[in-house]
Amino acid sequence: MPLDQFAIIESTLREGEQFSTASFSTGQKLEIAALLDAFGVEMIEMTSPVASPQSDADIRTVVSAGLSARILTHIRCRKDDALRALDTGVHGLDVVIGTSPQLIQHSHGKSIREIVDTASEVLSFIREQAPDIILRFSTEDTFRSRESDLLRVYLAVADLGIVNRLGVADTVGVAQPLQVFHMVHQLVRLTGLDVEFHGHNDSGCAIANAAAALEAGATHIDTTILGIGERNGITPLGGLIARLYTIDRAYVAKYNLELLPALDALIANTCGIPIPFSNYITGASAFMHKAGIHAKAVLADPATYEILRPEDFGLTREIAIGHRLTGWNSLKARAQTLGLSLSDKRLKELTHEVKRRADVRTLTADEIDSLLRDAAGAVIGT
Amino acid sequence: MPLDQFAIIESTLREGEQFSTASFSTGQKLEIAALLDAFGVEMIEMTSPVASPQSDADIRTVVSAGLSARILTHIRCRKDDALRALDTGVHGLDVVIGTSPQLIQHSHGKSIREIVDTASEVLSFIREQAPDIILRFSTEDTFRSRESDLLRVYLAVADLGIVNRLGVADTVGVAQPLQVFHMVHQLVRLTGLDVEFHGHNDSGCAIANAAAALEAGATHIDTTILGIGERNGITPLGGLIARLYTIDRAYVAKYNLELLPALDALIANTCGIPIPFSNYITGASAFMHKAGIHAKAVLADPATYEILRPEDFGLTREIAIGHRLTGWNSLKARAQTLGLSLSDKRLKELTHEVKRRADVRTLTADEIDSLLRDAAGAVIGT
Repeated sequence: MPLDQFAIIESTLREGEQFSTASFSTGQKLEIAALLDAFGVEMIEMTSPVASPQSDADIRTVVSAGLSARILTHIRCRKDDALRALDTGVHGLDVVIGTSPQLIQHSHGKSIREIVDTASEVLSFIREQAPDIILRFSTEDTFRSRESDLLRVYLAVADLGIVNRLGVADTVGVAQPLQVFHMVHQLVRLTGLDVEFHGHNDSGCAIANAAAALEAGATHIDTTILGIGERNGITPLGGLIARLYTIDRAYVAKYNLELLPALDALIANTCGIPIPFSNYITGASAFMHKAGIHAKAVLADPATYEILRPEDFGLTREIAIGHRLTGWNSLKARAQTLGLSLSDKRLKELTHEVKRRADVRTLTADEIDSLLRDAAGAVIGT
Repeated sequence: MPLDQFAIIESTLREGEQFSTASFSTGQKLEIAALLDAFGVEMIEMTSPVASPQSDADIRTVVSAGLSARILTHIRCRKDDALRALDTGVHGLDVVIGTSPQLIQHSHGKSIREIVDTASEVLSFIREQAPDIILRFSTEDTFRSRESDLLRVYLAVADLGIVNRLGVADTVGVAQPLQVFHMVHQLVRLTGLDVEFHGHNDSGCAIANAAAALEAGATHIDTTILGIGERNGITPLGGLIARLYTIDRAYVAKYNLELLPALDALIANTCGIPIPFSNYITGASAFMHKAGIHAKAVLADPATYEILRPEDFGLTREIAIGHRLTGWNSLKARAQTLGLSLSDKRLKELTHEVKRRADVRTLTADEIDSLLRDAAGAVIGT
């Protein structure tokens, strides 16, 4: 299967709404959906119409916008939720039910046998109502569920022959990449259905787990812009792109990568949060090189310390100069940019001067330029 | 081997100094080192004395502070760097040399045979000068190096019988967990030496890779506070703790976990960066539950949607109420906290009211409390 034969289910308008400061207006939802569509995500998941009156109306509005992306909504495994969702004209339903002992006890109280019965009944009902709708069934908290329970549920649902996709969800952020690989691989082998992975990031593996799922044959990955979601969120769109790009650029060549900075900025602005300094690709220092050894090599060939090319995302690299870790090659490159002629010996002396001064206070770019210009002027003057 | 038999090499004072806005004063270095020591990290790595005069002086100052943590410095594979470092009285030297085609071409220009010769000469020289110093040898850009080259270098160095530890470094953030597992496992098997993993986070796998390294038998993991470092940084201390805690709490029981929020806050303040909203454990919403289904279950048992216990880190959980995704159990719990008596029917009506109003604007906690108090007052008044 070609590497790019997978789809992103972009859930900023569902999982993302569960982030603490997220509360999108209709206009904001349309703006986010349109930019995601331009980026090229295949599916956009929206909050259930059951959540609130505006949530219901907004699905209808986004469906009517005529985007290329398919619009999905995410509902509990209940007929009343399904009817409300179907009424919106949405293209797909993502049905979920908890299967871990924790969620069975405190969320719905059903036994595994009852979960199988409920799922069969609700899914069959949906398929009768909407023969052509994209229908997904997912367990919730998959990675704290008993494997035997999961197989009973998934195999019974697959046997119905009416769902398009099975979902596995690391709801609490506990899964390890190898566990995700095994679970996805097992479902692909046993059912032949499309498989979706949804992973929370509480313990920092949401990106690695998504990559492991794809490697195992998953066809759909859930993301949100900047990773916003319940608690500290899920697999970030930009992080998934960064990971797949570094494994094989063929994974992501189908997306308009240069729109990623605008997507991240849009959510940061809308939610009133700064883009994290550590963010993938669009973090302020993602392409900044500081230590002298790094700067020297990057000036010779960016690939020495860059596994992502900033220009592929409409971004540029930066060499930090005015600090104590600087190297003379950084000053030499800056002098050349300024058209100044300085000997290597003089540049090395200036580098020592920069380090000495930076031990007290970091120098600004202007101060570095003045230092270089003064030195070049002094040489000319003597 | 017991799970906690590994050591953290905390490199905020080396790798962290390579972060764009990091430039630590002597006092700040002492404060950071002391808090890391109180947290319980086993080793603290500092910038090479070759970097600047203050870098040299600061190693001496931190070594003299009498911490439990061993103080290391990180140097190029050169005798002159080693002599400068040894002169500071540091407890360990972390020696590094690039082995990838990219770094061989643009950093030092040596062939693999020359790398082996240089490493043998420099490491032997260091061991002669300092029979008791902790001596590590690492390749740089390990995961873009040829495996045959790596084995030639590592096996030759191990055969010297004088280094305590081998390092593998994902310098550009390209490694995948399974690759890290295989490389570390191979070195452990073939050499029997301690093995250290250092991983950058450009593509979001620095935490997963560190966990894979430990699983493969690595004995040392490099971290920085908040993950600060070159570009978007490396494995964050808090992220590593979160990952290991969720795999098995026995990994991290030896650390003073309740100091983690102070460590993250210290670096955020010192570097002038906000703690990312998505940060592990200490992000603002790491323990905030928003969707009604989540809140209901967490109120019954926090383990339903929490894989980390906030109280283990001196933190508390929070239920967000005034938004369109809220549920009536959240309002019920808040009413109980306020000592208000409201029927389930009335609470469900109020929940609809909150959702309707939140579709326009998120309600503040005070507004929720007023709504509940008014409703309870009205009941009493009738």
